[in-house]
Amino acid sequence: MEVALYLLPVTLGETSIDSVLPPYNKEIIVQIKHFIVEDVRSARRFLKKVDKEIDIDTLTFYPLNKHTSAEEISGYLKPLIAGSPMGVISEAGCPAVADPGADVVAMAQRKNLKVVPLVGPSSIILSVMASGFNGQSFAFHGYLPIDPSERVKTIKHLESRIYSENQTQLFIETPYRNNKMAEDILHNCRPQTKLCIAADITCEGEFIKTKTVKEWQGKLPDLTKIPCIFLLYK
Amino acid sequence: MEVALYLLPVTLGETSIDSVLPPYNKEIIVQIKHFIVEDVRSARRFLKKVDKEIDIDTLTFYPLNKHTSAEEISGYLKPLIAGSPMGVISEAGCPAVADPGADVVAMAQRKNLKVVPLVGPSSIILSVMASGFNGQSFAFHGYLPIDPSERVKTIKHLESRIYSENQTQLFIETPYRNNKMAEDILHNCRPQTKLCIAADITCEGEFIKTKTVKEWQGKLPDLTKIPCIFLLYK
Repeated sequence: MEVALYLLPVTLGETSIDSVLPPYNKEIIVQIKHFIVEDVRSARRFLKKVDKEIDIDTLTFYPLNKHTSAEEISGYLKPLIAGSPMGVISEAGCPAVADPGADVVAMAQRKNLKVVPLVGPSSIILSVMASGFNGQSFAFHGYLPIDPSERVKTIKHLESRIYSENQTQLFIETPYRNNKMAEDILHNCRPQTKLCIAADITCEGEFIKTKTVKEWQGKLPDLTKIPCIFLLYK
Repeated sequence: MEVALYLLPVTLGETSIDSVLPPYNKEIIVQIKHFIVEDVRSARRFLKKVDKEIDIDTLTFYPLNKHTSAEEISGYLKPLIAGSPMGVISEAGCPAVADPGADVVAMAQRKNLKVVPLVGPSSIILSVMASGFNGQSFAFHGYLPIDPSERVKTIKHLESRIYSENQTQLFIETPYRNNKMAEDILHNCRPQTKLCIAADITCEGEFIKTKTVKEWQGKLPDLTKIPCIFLLYK
């Protein structure tokens, strides 16, 4: 096994490891003793799910969140520099994509350390695949502004890029505000603009549906508390 | 197994199925008899690799390329409408993302048929993860224009979005023009702009390296004939 910073995706919810992660990931994970993680408790739970034989007490966890300083991150990489492979685990899906991890990867790249991303579920790619929208040009924007007028402005701006650049536009929302987001889209986009709602991806209630704004009117499902990604295209 | 249009990723090159595809994909694949494929020969090869017990002669393949008309695509979906699960397979990675498939998915969405994307390797997500660049906002642009002046204009435009929108910019090139593309970036971007070159992702020669334009000067690896994705960020 090569000494590297391995980027280890996790499941997107209550789904089995076998449904979303390649067997190779387990082979790599069981050889790693040092994990940089978004949340220690859920990382431990994930590792136990990967292999219940893993002795969690022999592992070291380095917490990674918005309060982690650049100095701390630099310190975290010491085992890797000393020759031990390390892993990065975020809360859901792929680390460093719409999730923490990019800072530690950037630091590893600056220090010329090897970085190896492993395959796993990304709601971004899965939703682009299933939307029927342009997969040759698309942009992911994370969360839109919370301020109502800024938010409407952003939605309209993204909609304009669909038409001016033929580019699929993706964004997310905190689950308890999903219904509001869907309504904001229906109220501010053109009737013929298409909206794909991709909810609970890879999980039991998976729902990925594309309709025009006009067709969605009055027919929105309840998206409260369900992880969702929204896609717009023409 | 649910009746649906399954989007089935394949390996990105000469790598094992187990390293990039979840076991669940095989469970699904062996139950499908109708495949819409970018290339019949490579699809057969992939299916044999997934399970050498698959009797290829009992399967039906529907070729999908830029010459396939909307009417043909609509016809392709008849088995699905009649109650048989179908699969979509492209040449490399995830169907409908930087690859054909989006038209057939769009048709399935219009006909209100269930679409289920399965997890697999996407050079786009894997390279964003490993670049250390912004994974909260990124845009994939496919191929840039071939015309030299249009191309330089596009590179500069994408570079400006790094700074104005804090957005990671990704694009690809046909392998035999990769060296030219890398040179075009070095000649036209600011010295401090960062370029991540991600080559041969998930394969034996995987190389993912982030440096500033200035640092890359005179130190570009030979990228001819190697599948590559280019990422720009500040």
